[in-house]
Amino acid sequence: MSEAVEGREAIVLLDRTREVVDPQLRATIDSLPGSLRRVAMYHFGWEHADGTPAAGSTGKAIRPALVLAATRALGGNECLAVSAAAAVELAHNFTLLHDDVIDEDPTRRHRPTAWTVFGTPDAIIAGDAMFAVALRLLAEDHHPASAAASRRLADCVIELCAGQQADCAFEERAPNDVSLDECLEMATAKTGALLGCACALGALYAGAGEEETAAMDAFGREAGLAFQLIDDLIGIWGDPDRTGKPAGADLAAHKKSLPVVAALTSGTAAGAELAELYRGPMNAATVRRAAEAVDRAGGRDWAQLQAADRMARAVHELSRAVPDLAAAGDLLALAEFVTRRTR
Amino acid sequence: MSEAVEGREAIVLLDRTREVVDPQLRATIDSLPGSLRRVAMYHFGWEHADGTPAAGSTGKAIRPALVLAATRALGGNECLAVSAAAAVELAHNFTLLHDDVIDEDPTRRHRPTAWTVFGTPDAIIAGDAMFAVALRLLAEDHHPASAAASRRLADCVIELCAGQQADCAFEERAPNDVSLDECLEMATAKTGALLGCACALGALYAGAGEEETAAMDAFGREAGLAFQLIDDLIGIWGDPDRTGKPAGADLAAHKKSLPVVAALTSGTAAGAELAELYRGPMNAATVRRAAEAVDRAGGRDWAQLQAADRMARAVHELSRAVPDLAAAGDLLALAEFVTRRTR
Repeated sequence: MSEAVEGREAIVLLDRTREVVDPQLRATIDSLPGSLRRVAMYHFGWEHADGTPAAGSTGKAIRPALVLAATRALGGNECLAVSAAAAVELAHNFTLLHDDVIDEDPTRRHRPTAWTVFGTPDAIIAGDAMFAVALRLLAEDHHPASAAASRRLADCVIELCAGQQADCAFEERAPNDVSLDECLEMATAKTGALLGCACALGALYAGAGEEETAAMDAFGREAGLAFQLIDDLIGIWGDPDRTGKPAGADLAAHKKSLPVVAALTSGTAAGAELAELYRGPMNAATVRRAAEAVDRAGGRDWAQLQAADRMARAVHELSRAVPDLAAAGDLLALAEFVTRRTR
Repeated sequence: MSEAVEGREAIVLLDRTREVVDPQLRATIDSLPGSLRRVAMYHFGWEHADGTPAAGSTGKAIRPALVLAATRALGGNECLAVSAAAAVELAHNFTLLHDDVIDEDPTRRHRPTAWTVFGTPDAIIAGDAMFAVALRLLAEDHHPASAAASRRLADCVIELCAGQQADCAFEERAPNDVSLDECLEMATAKTGALLGCACALGALYAGAGEEETAAMDAFGREAGLAFQLIDDLIGIWGDPDRTGKPAGADLAAHKKSLPVVAALTSGTAAGAELAELYRGPMNAATVRRAAEAVDRAGGRDWAQLQAADRMARAVHELSRAVPDLAAAGDLLALAEFVTRRTR
């Protein structure tokens, strides 16, 4: 199968996922009390800031697609896992609402972030309510796996919090003070954990045992780390028209993303140059020079190779969970989609 | 039984509650990853800001005491409800961490608030993790009621969020623009809901049916509203040495608490005077004048009578849940304790 066809397969899967999960998501958000509902509707792109209906820009739906695909891959009925898929997407969006407040990010999915529109207090509160509603959805789901799924999702959120906290702490430290291992651990907690949780929930909803569930979790984690590496590359070299963020946004924010830390810890002259640039304020010219320094220090190549390596590990874990890889085709297509996207 | 003896009874109950719930709380907080653990340990008063051990100031433990007392009152085994009691206290403290950020409160339990010590990002993240750990505790609790308890706690947090959001929105509105009904509804959501949830969880853990659980919830809600009314009175006339907050802190912050709104909507000259004072900045002298105006406008008396009325309703609801009121003695003692405390 050609790469283009596989990519198209993932897009079809994501579209199909949104088709079944969006109505559930929307009904859940609709159940929130007035003002919380309004912030959430805006965040999901279903309403403009003034409360009028909008087309929606609920994101790529990769996490719910992983839940449903994992259920299918293990012989379960994906229709019974729709609430679990929606719960994962709600938990993801709860963290986005809070992360945007914490990172003071002005833009999300090409639109002003919720806190810039409704203020920090409402964005914090709406995030809290979104997490609560995610857990209520699981608690109300009369599926034998829902209690185990709740436990796993709560655990995952604790790990996400630890990752976000580590990320914030890294920003305060000197350029050369963060090791690549610490950075990989942080990325695993911040991104890998929820993708792993999505796959594990899918496994639980297919009635899988502990070993299969753990392997599914590991598959999602490794794919998630690959995803983060690609995302970090995009944060430096992504096309502003497609990312909705200014060029080199992560460098301008002195972000210690994985390619940056790889460059800073490379022991090269370019790495030292980058450290020097990171000590001062950034403008368009220094952002360009920093991007070149990351590249020359080997940070770009390292991230690309590391992403490929993580994908290989993901496939290995997947083969443990689903010995017949033909049944895991959708999961592979999704994992390869996220690590190949160029925007 | 004399009032003094009843008060002492509640204090014994609260001490006994802390004795069984604190170890569970502490073990749960201890399970958090490094930096999240530190913020949580500080918030609960178990550590100083520098991480050295502290004596602890975990609050009065009214909510967990209600859980255990409700279980006992309905013939359940309170030892099986300790995790549920700890989960309610963790959820309560999650909201305190976020409320302090949102309200920019500098002091909590006579100590600097977590956000002033660790920064807003860490306080938000630690709050998120505390909510997650509360739900994990319920999900890991192998009690037949734990799923229903999770659902109820998630629902309650959504209501708490709506209450906190309404509270923030009220602060932005003109002094005369908030009705007393809106204000009572907000207080029910912000304070009554969690006390009701504590009692309902206790009922569920005793194997109670829907009707008894609903009556227990209503008991806690009414007692919670009485509690809030007293708290609002303390926010104006409380002794700074005992509250740990400056005198008239709520007035200085232009807070539209229940006695204030009662005064503002009283149609009296004193109410108009209060509205005028609330339009300008506050200093020690205007805070004193505002407190006198609330009193003269009848806001103080109204709040005291309303608190008594809510307590009467609470007792009525309790008699529906526990027909033999002798079995409900501990719940009554706790409810009367919170509405009689003078600090």
